[in-house]
Amino acid sequence: MPLIDRDPLLLTPGPLSTSLRTKQAMLHDRGSWDEAFNRITAEVCRRLVDIVHAGETHVAVPMQGSGTFAVEAALGTLVPRDGKVLVPNHGAYCARILRILATIGRAAVELTVPEDQPMSPAAIAAALDADPGLSHVAVVHCETGTGILNPLEDIARVVAERGRALIVDAMSSYAAVAIDARTTPFDALVAASGKGLEGVPGMGFVIASRTALEASAGRCHSLALDLHDQWRYLQRTTQWRFTPPTHVVAALAEALRQFDEEGGVAARGARYAANGRRLVDGLGALGLQPFLRPEVQSPVIVTFHAPRHPAWDFDTFYRGVRERGYILYPGKLTRVETFRVGCIGALAPADVDGVVDAVARTLRTMGIPTPR
Amino acid sequence: MPLIDRDPLLLTPGPLSTSLRTKQAMLHDRGSWDEAFNRITAEVCRRLVDIVHAGETHVAVPMQGSGTFAVEAALGTLVPRDGKVLVPNHGAYCARILRILATIGRAAVELTVPEDQPMSPAAIAAALDADPGLSHVAVVHCETGTGILNPLEDIARVVAERGRALIVDAMSSYAAVAIDARTTPFDALVAASGKGLEGVPGMGFVIASRTALEASAGRCHSLALDLHDQWRYLQRTTQWRFTPPTHVVAALAEALRQFDEEGGVAARGARYAANGRRLVDGLGALGLQPFLRPEVQSPVIVTFHAPRHPAWDFDTFYRGVRERGYILYPGKLTRVETFRVGCIGALAPADVDGVVDAVARTLRTMGIPTPR
Repeated sequence: MPLIDRDPLLLTPGPLSTSLRTKQAMLHDRGSWDEAFNRITAEVCRRLVDIVHAGETHVAVPMQGSGTFAVEAALGTLVPRDGKVLVPNHGAYCARILRILATIGRAAVELTVPEDQPMSPAAIAAALDADPGLSHVAVVHCETGTGILNPLEDIARVVAERGRALIVDAMSSYAAVAIDARTTPFDALVAASGKGLEGVPGMGFVIASRTALEASAGRCHSLALDLHDQWRYLQRTTQWRFTPPTHVVAALAEALRQFDEEGGVAARGARYAANGRRLVDGLGALGLQPFLRPEVQSPVIVTFHAPRHPAWDFDTFYRGVRERGYILYPGKLTRVETFRVGCIGALAPADVDGVVDAVARTLRTMGIPTPR
Repeated sequence: MPLIDRDPLLLTPGPLSTSLRTKQAMLHDRGSWDEAFNRITAEVCRRLVDIVHAGETHVAVPMQGSGTFAVEAALGTLVPRDGKVLVPNHGAYCARILRILATIGRAAVELTVPEDQPMSPAAIAAALDADPGLSHVAVVHCETGTGILNPLEDIARVVAERGRALIVDAMSSYAAVAIDARTTPFDALVAASGKGLEGVPGMGFVIASRTALEASAGRCHSLALDLHDQWRYLQRTTQWRFTPPTHVVAALAEALRQFDEEGGVAARGARYAANGRRLVDGLGALGLQPFLRPEVQSPVIVTFHAPRHPAWDFDTFYRGVRERGYILYPGKLTRVETFRVGCIGALAPADVDGVVDAVARTLRTMGIPTPR
């Protein structure tokens, strides 16, 4: 087998493969109190709000750490200590929200959803009607555990109609799936640098309603994760409260420029969807079937049923594909035996063909027959 | 004035100027579940423990975010909910510990220390003797607000003799000042990637006593900042719990290699001390006096009294020095009018001469006379 003389491509939903131009933005050191850096922060925050058409009503607050840090910051800052949160749950990232709420001492009600079904706006409405004590709903837009996409606009409507507040984990959908704050009301929408924006990992951000944020002073369980405090400090000084990951922020600014050059959400979403189709077609021709129905499949990550063959072994499969230059998402998060392949990042359909080829060769080496 | 055709040098205590080699380590994307990346994490953690000679007793737990995130993680995980922490306070970073404790609901007792004086082990001992309810002491090793260095070994001894636990914020001293866990007992010592190790900012870490960590399950106020959970997950899977800042971690691994090549703490501390002496001598010749006595001055950052002259204006001064290619630490943290200049980062004494020259020219432009 020839050695692959390049970095492996990442077929994972973050960290993902980024452009060289994005990474080269990290070849400079910047002072975190310096005007030049503060301008980068301000520009990044302005663009992050614009992408979801929220400039009239919302602000973007950056947060150091992974996306989960920003999710915890949003929940801890925006849900009052006596609040109560409805959490529809059909996967690993929904379950993580429940775990955060339990840890930080906010009441939560779980609404169980089968892992291959989208969340039902009607079921959410019914749960809210049944329990007037529910103040918030927290949903995952694209549950990355399976790749399922939820009907966010409809969910937001039923939540708003009932006067409750919505917090959205849009970690893997932001910049890949259109979200419009003017028609999809939310108090907070959380994402991160290293997903559909194709930056590098190291910071999250919350697109937060100005009204909700203003009401949240002194509420957070944490100093580091206090979104209100971070926002106020940024407003007052143009600086982050605590040392920002300056190189990550600069890479995100550069990634945002390329996002605009590509054509924004529409173009990026179309490329990811094309990647996804090519993947489903290519692996389909090898006899591998997607876990989800096409109608609920996001363009972010596709979960496939593992081959039903005695020679199947995920670790061997993962290593075989890796040796051929592609890194899959290790581990399965579904109840049945599956594997997952990401469609996002600086990848073109031709790269997907390479993945399909690597999968085909690996299965053959493992002695697992494929139709072609 | 000639334009400076290079990135400005950072004379700040993090983010600081790093080597090109360190930054170039960020030109690759790495899968955060992949073995190759997990080996980098393991190697970084092993080196971090070794630097303070703690391999027999302690483990290094990395934490996404800035150093403050790691400080909060250490306090929230290691101090029991009914614990009580003595916090000697002589500056901004001591005050931040108090603010964290108040936010996360841990009792604290402040021990006020004049900002130009080191913490007194005798005063800490007396405070511990006076209040048997104190379970922990939390100290800043080098208070970066002024640059003062505290007698950590003596403090650790009096704390240990009294059977209390010590948590050390060694953010700016780690790797620059020798610390030996075998003679300086502590439960936790916290630092970050972007200080004396000369990595880029984006992660902190806690060198934590294995015994203390084992006793701390389920105690943390936060999921993201739960040091115990992060440790257990790393042990079990070799992976970070939540997406790590992969590029920052890779840069730190590369920075650690250069740290070893330079000759470890002794060589790095000597270079920083030489930078500091050159700075004090050079600015001294311009009539600028250090805020601290030499005996308590750390090699990390030097605070200078501002010139007593009607034309003095920090913003003008900062901009003038910046235009000449050097970024100072903006803002003063002391009660009297001062400015601060960092000595750490990829800087040699010749760079310090450049800073001194830029300060001299800037003061002259401002109409502030200097002796030479």
